[in-house]
Amino acid sequence: MSHNTFGHLFRVTTFGESHGVALGCVVDGCPPGLPLEAEEIQAELDRRKPGQSRFTTQRREPDQVKILSGVFSDDRTGGRQLTTGTPIALMIENTDQRSKDYSEIRDSYRPGHADYTYDAKYGLRDYRGGGRSSARETAARVAAGAVARKVVPGITIRAALVQMGPHAIDRANWDWEEVGNNPFFCPDANAAALYETYLDGIRKDGSSVGAVIEVIAEGVPPGLGAPIYGKLDADLAAAMMSINAVKGVEIGDGFAAAALRGEDNADEMRAGNDGRPRFLANHAGGILGGISSGEPVVVRFAVKPTSSILTPRQSVNRDGAEIDLITKGRHDPCVGIRAVPVAEAMMACVLADHYLRHRGQVGERA
Amino acid sequence: MSHNTFGHLFRVTTFGESHGVALGCVVDGCPPGLPLEAEEIQAELDRRKPGQSRFTTQRREPDQVKILSGVFSDDRTGGRQLTTGTPIALMIENTDQRSKDYSEIRDSYRPGHADYTYDAKYGLRDYRGGGRSSARETAARVAAGAVARKVVPGITIRAALVQMGPHAIDRANWDWEEVGNNPFFCPDANAAALYETYLDGIRKDGSSVGAVIEVIAEGVPPGLGAPIYGKLDADLAAAMMSINAVKGVEIGDGFAAAALRGEDNADEMRAGNDGRPRFLANHAGGILGGISSGEPVVVRFAVKPTSSILTPRQSVNRDGAEIDLITKGRHDPCVGIRAVPVAEAMMACVLADHYLRHRGQVGERA
Amino acid sequence: MSHNTFGHLFRVTTFGESHGVALGCVVDGCPPGLPLEAEEIQAELDRRKPGQSRFTTQRREPDQVKILSGVFSDDRTGGRQLTTGTPIALMIENTDQRSKDYSEIRDSYRPGHADYTYDAKYGLRDYRGGGRSSARETAARVAAGAVARKVVPGITIRAALVQMGPHAIDRANWDWEEVGNNPFFCPDANAAALYETYLDGIRKDGSSVGAVIEVIAEGVPPGLGAPIYGKLDADLAAAMMSINAVKGVEIGDGFAAAALRGEDNADEMRAGNDGRPRFLANHAGGILGGISSGEPVVVRFAVKPTSSILTPRQSVNRDGAEIDLITKGRHDPCVGIRAVPVAEAMMACVLADHYLRHRGQVGERA
Amino acid sequence: MSHNTFGHLFRVTTFGESHGVALGCVVDGCPPGLPLEAEEIQAELDRRKPGQSRFTTQRREPDQVKILSGVFSDDRTGGRQLTTGTPIALMIENTDQRSKDYSEIRDSYRPGHADYTYDAKYGLRDYRGGGRSSARETAARVAAGAVARKVVPGITIRAALVQMGPHAIDRANWDWEEVGNNPFFCPDANAAALYETYLDGIRKDGSSVGAVIEVIAEGVPPGLGAPIYGKLDADLAAAMMSINAVKGVEIGDGFAAAALRGEDNADEMRAGNDGRPRFLANHAGGILGGISSGEPVVVRFAVKPTSSILTPRQSVNRDGAEIDLITKGRHDPCVGIRAVPVAEAMMACVLADHYLRHRGQVGERA
Repeated sequence: MSHNTFGHLFRVTTFGESHGVALGCVVDGCPPGLPLEAEEIQAELDRRKPGQSRFTTQRREPDQVKILSGVFSDDRTGGRQLTTGTPIALMIENTDQRSKDYSEIRDSYRPGHADYTYDAKYGLRDYRGGGRSSARETAARVAAGAVARKVVPGITIRAALVQMGPHAIDRANWDWEEVGNNPFFCPDANAAALYETYLDGIRKDGSSVGAVIEVIAEGVPPGLGAPIYGKLDADLAAAMMSINAVKGVEIGDGFAAAALRGEDNADEMRAGNDGRPRFLANHAGGILGGISSGEPVVVRFAVKPTSSILTPRQSVNRDGAEIDLITKGRHDPCVGIRAVPVAEAMMACVLADHYLRHRGQVGERA
Repeated sequence: MSHNTFGHLFRVTTFGESHGVALGCVVDGCPPGLPLEAEEIQAELDRRKPGQSRFTTQRREPDQVKILSGVFSDDRTGGRQLTTGTPIALMIENTDQRSKDYSEIRDSYRPGHADYTYDAKYGLRDYRGGGRSSARETAARVAAGAVARKVVPGITIRAALVQMGPHAIDRANWDWEEVGNNPFFCPDANAAALYETYLDGIRKDGSSVGAVIEVIAEGVPPGLGAPIYGKLDADLAAAMMSINAVKGVEIGDGFAAAALRGEDNADEMRAGNDGRPRFLANHAGGILGGISSGEPVVVRFAVKPTSSILTPRQSVNRDGAEIDLITKGRHDPCVGIRAVPVAEAMMACVLADHYLRHRGQVGERA
Repeated sequence: MSHNTFGHLFRVTTFGESHGVALGCVVDGCPPGLPLEAEEIQAELDRRKPGQSRFTTQRREPDQVKILSGVFSDDRTGGRQLTTGTPIALMIENTDQRSKDYSEIRDSYRPGHADYTYDAKYGLRDYRGGGRSSARETAARVAAGAVARKVVPGITIRAALVQMGPHAIDRANWDWEEVGNNPFFCPDANAAALYETYLDGIRKDGSSVGAVIEVIAEGVPPGLGAPIYGKLDADLAAAMMSINAVKGVEIGDGFAAAALRGEDNADEMRAGNDGRPRFLANHAGGILGGISSGEPVVVRFAVKPTSSILTPRQSVNRDGAEIDLITKGRHDPCVGIRAVPVAEAMMACVLADHYLRHRGQVGERA
Repeated sequence: MSHNTFGHLFRVTTFGESHGVALGCVVDGCPPGLPLEAEEIQAELDRRKPGQSRFTTQRREPDQVKILSGVFSDDRTGGRQLTTGTPIALMIENTDQRSKDYSEIRDSYRPGHADYTYDAKYGLRDYRGGGRSSARETAARVAAGAVARKVVPGITIRAALVQMGPHAIDRANWDWEEVGNNPFFCPDANAAALYETYLDGIRKDGSSVGAVIEVIAEGVPPGLGAPIYGKLDADLAAAMMSINAVKGVEIGDGFAAAALRGEDNADEMRAGNDGRPRFLANHAGGILGGISSGEPVVVRFAVKPTSSILTPRQSVNRDGAEIDLITKGRHDPCVGIRAVPVAEAMMACVLADHYLRHRGQVGERA
């Protein structure tokens, strides 16, 4: 990962600020011959789109994606639009850049935001809506992820919100069907009902709350990843940690593994039907020694509460003067909700990259 | 990160297997003119060395480091050995490769180990002592870290074990001096006393246990890191996750932040003496928007229990036949202990790289 | 260099096909605080623009550039638009995609073009106007180069055409002022007059001809570049060779150096006024051991004749059948002419990258 | 290419100085399962070894290579030593570091050498024998190249010296068998006879002379390379330019192509037997649009005369004082000779990398 690009053979470079002209990405290294329509990318973007419920920011952005390059169709492709192996540029124009008074955010450092650190690093910043540090950038990731999903044959990538504030779901209730039935991407219908009331309270308080997201990839072939600094779990950790407001990442049992004894943490094996071992448990989250085992790859990450709140906080301004600050405007009371499709996209990009790298180094074994 | 190299301007490439001829690393991009003696590297290696207490593996390795290139001294340098800006190759020869019968590990997949995944990826593996997947590789990291510590002026990097199995330390007892007084790198003397009894029990049971390590870097200048995929926390997450047996990484409050409300998670600011804001708390762990704030950088990670245990576990062999397996030999009952100096090394390498990258893009602001 | 990105700290990723929706680039790693207006980029693009004389393709493209991200202005910047350190995305929409019958180029492999090799690699290609292999992509490079020119303080980068077909200029006549006075970017007025007649003949014959371009960077500080695979000349060679139709690259005396004796090739030194050596000659082209010496950096490269000609050539089609082929359409009879501003752009990008890398590793010495 | 590493999936990092403890390389990303013995690497090193005739330096170095990691053998591999997919570290210890008085070279800047530029960049340098800038580093490349030759199935890579000083070979006399019959790697027996007399004269004069080397790879599958900055020819240009003393690189007809007309430069095609086009000429040197065509890949490069000569030259010392300088010691009168095996190694490394990258992105088409 370097600046604004991640991946090696499947490489994504994103650009754009919250209130700039446009944001987007260049997806480089996508294999040729994959069917790709703007509608498919749009469908993923629509899942992340703001303003879909009272629980996400009321910014009105259609987030309409435009494919600028890298695809082709003619009668020989049967009219289907296919990737060509050249870079796929995707652009989303910003439309709802509400003209407003930015004088406060311009001069102040909002606690929990990147205002101070950007200034400390660069000496200036595009402060409108948070500029480059806004979670709006994740729209570009979701677009790239829609391409990445095409790369590894036979995989399924799904994410869900498994904790809001202090309230974890009951994993016994997990139903993937439920994820689409509530505005929280929550797989537990009971928890979703609770979250509705809970988050309304938070929102009315002008407060915010954190969350935990879980992403699961099924059908990952064994062998993806590499020792030592090309580990699949290391790349996934970086990918998830790069999402705005994320403060922790776990693979499989994660931090809970620290409290286990060796015999309880061992994923025992029996003979499988397909010549592969059949694992009796998946404490490891599908990754051993940095390489996929064929079991589901399971990643969880923690999102801190949205830093923009209506409760006054102590801070300083650019001139070093002490101030009290509240952050008005359109915000997600639980920014973790919209991180769910972003997490799927990051998982898809990392797996696509490792799939191509593995195929390069080892051939078609996987 | 790519295969066996990490970093961009400060780049470390490691090589070597547990029972091969030698292991080591090439440190590329180290600034010129830094004093560097083999003894300084050796001092760090000695902290990680096996066989120093009954709580770590009894393998007898002097882990003697040799500098093969990249340093120079003459009368003009006053006899001091200085880095020259060219690659610094460091080599540690393996000496205690006990000749033993590897037939069992050769043909079997030890649960929790990378035996199966290496075979699935590469079709063959150096199984002696775990080969490339052995934690022995971390000696090379510690050596590289000793160089990296020289790069960022004025920083202090320290790590400690803060949880063993289910037993967390009492943070009120935290005393950095204690870390050197017990074989666990534990900053809480009471906890260290407990761990002694506890780990003896684990060891006698032929079992093993996990741990949590915390690494703190003080004196990090604000401005290190970069949006979006060059985030300091993303690189730290990858670095720590790349250490053997690590299953989770947190920055600052980490997973606990998910349960907080926005007003409790905000790191409020007041005017500081040096023109910088003074932060009243550090929930963020010294990183905002992927860029260092000047506050201590705080990272925690979970290590799973050592997979090599004497309790029989179900598994399969290379031919797919079902077996019962115990892993004899010399093992750390809590592999997290020796991860402490490794964690410091990884922190040092990541900060060195980001310091140089920052200085490149922005100049000497930081 | 990897796929469609080059550079390490100053990184350029380009996208787009000849007849696609748009082409452009993302410039990542540009230092913050540099003034940058679209007009400045446009001025460079206008130098490369097609259809400016009867000696370049008659395609009518305004090549209007749009800055999508990475710049900011407000009252605090005095209304000036400054770079912010975040990625600068530049887009040029294609407007003159003449609707035409592509059936011939679709099914045939034009000699000297990349038609066959793209098909051999990817299995399909966007054949319209050559798709991604069209020299139209170089517009994106020129745009990126306009940004790169801002990075290294005090440098001057200029290029000129020094040979057309077999006709070299008389270097005694070299006058930089002349470069802007003729449609060939030729610094020798006499040669330019000759080229006019010569190229008219070539054009009327339906033929084409090659050229040699020379690029010179003055004011390059000593110390840019790095041993062994980060050599400044190696990166320049790759950069120039990556321009369409380039078949050879030289630094300084280049191939002529092979025929020299050591004493004739030595660039002798005398004491300079500024503490640096004063070089009495510059056979080396400003680079010694891969690192800049402070002398002008001199690069020359050869461009092959445009492959699209009206003379029938033998070829095969996609089905392997033998055909005779002529390439109609709008072509540059000497594609080397428009390579002149592209060469400047590539020089600027490579120097910007090495300047930032040097500043990162070594500090502000250079 | 970055600092001391090149390649992406097949990555080589070299280290070491002329008179340091050892030099070597880490080859990362080599596919698993390839037979590799130290003897095979040694055979390539022996071709480059100094002191084999009176026409190369009289330094006595056995250049004995040691494999430190990345290979494995047991009864299951039939006792053959195979690569495992993990990094292959190769080390060559320096033995003939003649203890001598370096006071002159320590303080002086030898014309044509990197003495001044290293000092300008780093502020200090290991001046013994040229340190890192010595061509001795190319031993590590030759070792890496011996591994790289294993990667692409069915290719043949050969190089030859085709010009010494002003004397080009007669290409009609080209006989690959002759290359091993003379100390110049010259494929023309008549030219070799001439070179013997010619170079003796140069040597006795205390002078030196340049050369041109040609490298040809046969059996390269079509499809290797990538648009735009991953072009095969761009990577080859960088690879060859990175060899010490190289000042120019050509692909196919190279600079001669500039003087051609389009119809003479076109490589016409007829139907081939294997479904591929049969090219009637190879002006392009096997690369079109940056991608291999299946024709032989032909690269030529120019080496400047050795800078170390016995004729006094004007220079300055570190303190800026003007001096006259001659460079005594053991030198190659034509450093181009020993560049021949180095060129083969670089070709092998670049093709291995592109083969793996292609296989990653596109699959097994090539």
